[in-house]
Amino acid sequence: MAPQIAQRINDIGGSVFSRLAGRIAGLRHPVAPLHVGDTYLRPPAGCALHELDPEDGPPLNRYLAPQGAVELRAALAARAGAPSLPPIDPDRVVVTPGATGALSAIAAATLEPGDEVIVLAPYWPLIVGLIRAQGGRPVEVPVLGLEAALVERVAAAVGPRTVAIYLNSPNNPSGAILSAETLAGIAEVARRHGLWIWADEVYAELSYVGPPPRVAAAAPELTISVGSFSKAYGMAGHRCGWAVLPEAPGLRDALWKTSTHQSYGAPTAAQVAGLRALERGGAWLDAARIAYADAGRAAAVRLGVPSPAAGTFLFLDVGEALRPDLSEDDALHDFLVRCLDAGLLLAPGRSCGADYGRYVRLCFTSAPPAVVAAAVDRLAGLMGRG
Amino acid sequence: MAPQIAQRINDIGGSVFSRLAGRIAGLRHPVAPLHVGDTYLRPPAGCALHELDPEDGPPLNRYLAPQGAVELRAALAARAGAPSLPPIDPDRVVVTPGATGALSAIAAATLEPGDEVIVLAPYWPLIVGLIRAQGGRPVEVPVLGLEAALVERVAAAVGPRTVAIYLNSPNNPSGAILSAETLAGIAEVARRHGLWIWADEVYAELSYVGPPPRVAAAAPELTISVGSFSKAYGMAGHRCGWAVLPEAPGLRDALWKTSTHQSYGAPTAAQVAGLRALERGGAWLDAARIAYADAGRAAAVRLGVPSPAAGTFLFLDVGEALRPDLSEDDALHDFLVRCLDAGLLLAPGRSCGADYGRYVRLCFTSAPPAVVAAAVDRLAGLMGRG
Repeated sequence: MAPQIAQRINDIGGSVFSRLAGRIAGLRHPVAPLHVGDTYLRPPAGCALHELDPEDGPPLNRYLAPQGAVELRAALAARAGAPSLPPIDPDRVVVTPGATGALSAIAAATLEPGDEVIVLAPYWPLIVGLIRAQGGRPVEVPVLGLEAALVERVAAAVGPRTVAIYLNSPNNPSGAILSAETLAGIAEVARRHGLWIWADEVYAELSYVGPPPRVAAAAPELTISVGSFSKAYGMAGHRCGWAVLPEAPGLRDALWKTSTHQSYGAPTAAQVAGLRALERGGAWLDAARIAYADAGRAAAVRLGVPSPAAGTFLFLDVGEALRPDLSEDDALHDFLVRCLDAGLLLAPGRSCGADYGRYVRLCFTSAPPAVVAAAVDRLAGLMGRG
Repeated sequence: MAPQIAQRINDIGGSVFSRLAGRIAGLRHPVAPLHVGDTYLRPPAGCALHELDPEDGPPLNRYLAPQGAVELRAALAARAGAPSLPPIDPDRVVVTPGATGALSAIAAATLEPGDEVIVLAPYWPLIVGLIRAQGGRPVEVPVLGLEAALVERVAAAVGPRTVAIYLNSPNNPSGAILSAETLAGIAEVARRHGLWIWADEVYAELSYVGPPPRVAAAAPELTISVGSFSKAYGMAGHRCGWAVLPEAPGLRDALWKTSTHQSYGAPTAAQVAGLRALERGGAWLDAARIAYADAGRAAAVRLGVPSPAAGTFLFLDVGEALRPDLSEDDALHDFLVRCLDAGLLLAPGRSCGADYGRYVRLCFTSAPPAVVAAAVDRLAGLMGRG
């Protein structure tokens, strides 16, 4: 008799790159890593880990309180929702190991086994496995090109086990921003059915069309907003994010418990660096936003698609470049292999939603602009846009 | 209609310090923080985060693979179980945000809702909440002073829903080390019933009586061993630990999934610093072990209890110092308040097991030796050992 693996974990798909792994390992030429959401920039001056002063502030090797440093929570509370929403009580901020840690703690705190979460698609690739890992069931509602009737379709997806709606605006992978009207409609659905709103806002600081509307403005009592230093300040490897909670009885205590028991909180140095970034990183962020917008626009122009409104990705329909004699999955795999042979690694669209088997996701910030431009040029060739 | 909190999370106890929080906040004198497992030492030379070279090795602000850096996993595999066990394949190592992250990912990978885990007590305070957070049920089996009949009592605690045995040796809080015979007996129980063994070995490097026996030697096919840089190398705030897996079908994939979806892995800099500590930290560890042993011995002598065999804690029966006119919980609270007034913060014993309402836990490494010695002297007075 052998011990077992939990069924809900076996049901989660493995790495979307496993089918490419052998070929990646055998590559003999350099490959632009445009499959992952990362940055070629270093963090703002004075905010890199090697620049921290161990004599100024908490010892970097010691624990902080698992819910986060008092000063960091206060700083995040003061800017929560800015510029459109008022500051909040620091007790409503929980610091976590990245936005992933925040969303995992939120899922653990709010899902009973079998509960459903409506997930607007396309989505951040980890969210559906994250929900399943905590015993929940993701229910996908496609958005891409369908925002007009979105609220009605969200309402139609609510069932007796629905407990939350997950939305990621600005969006990974599409770069789209949901309108204030759409968010208000979704908030109304949530209010009618007593649902949490999990608002993944890790790209809020990387909008190229002005501050994005926030769903917390429409449903302050239901919205758990998630942010991160990873994207806004080039600190993905630091593992520091946060959740801003509504004033809901018991939710703060629940989040403190689930976050503490999953990871014992975010690293000390990441919190010190994050606080510095809030204090000193404004000019860096403004410059990064311009550089990222330029890189996104250049890639979009070369590929003949609209420039992204926000974020660090293009989500590309490559259907016309796929071999028609293969199944959609095999054809996309064949396309990704051709990309790899041409020196760029992309993510398959299905990792962002079941409906996106003809899509690929490209991160235009995970390598320097010249590297991205050269890779995009080769991709244009593969897409018949030479 | 308001959205809900998951019942299993509401069932987890809150912070054991919440009853003291008001008094702690109002203190006007310094308090020795002997309630938490931490260190007064800085990490080994060259291994502190501010000493890392951002031009040598992976960029500290970028992601690594969520299962951990290849070089670190190889180094951990080479020393897995040393000196008593052979090296293993690096694929059997998963790097996580601390041992907490490892155990949480293990619980998520192996527990179905309602499954039971036998937890040897006293225990690391987070383990029972960690099990509950993942839908499981902890079943406590007391060990303290009862090791002779332990194997029989573990066997008697196995029920139809039991899936794992958690043991923490060397022990937090008692400092005790389970014998090879006891571990072999527990391994036999696990084998008979098809149970995982979760071996929390974060104090393995801090034994003062020679290398501790490892349960993986007795049940290599069932044992998931958990380690950490936090205690051995003074890096608790870095958040980097690991799990060493048995060769069990599907377990590696499951751990990769649960760890990735809970936190997206350990911080990059913590992994770089940890690898350096493995390479260069030997002399530091030898010196720290001597310093910690001295601090533990001095505290034990002053308090009239046996010196700890390992770890960083004393677990003290303070029953004789408790007010007899109060309930056990109120009497212990009263004692902790008197400690606080005397300038030392301790953890209540019940956080380490239901049977330990007369106990307190004291960390003798979370402040410099002179601070600990002075605090222990005051504690001795409160315990009537002035």
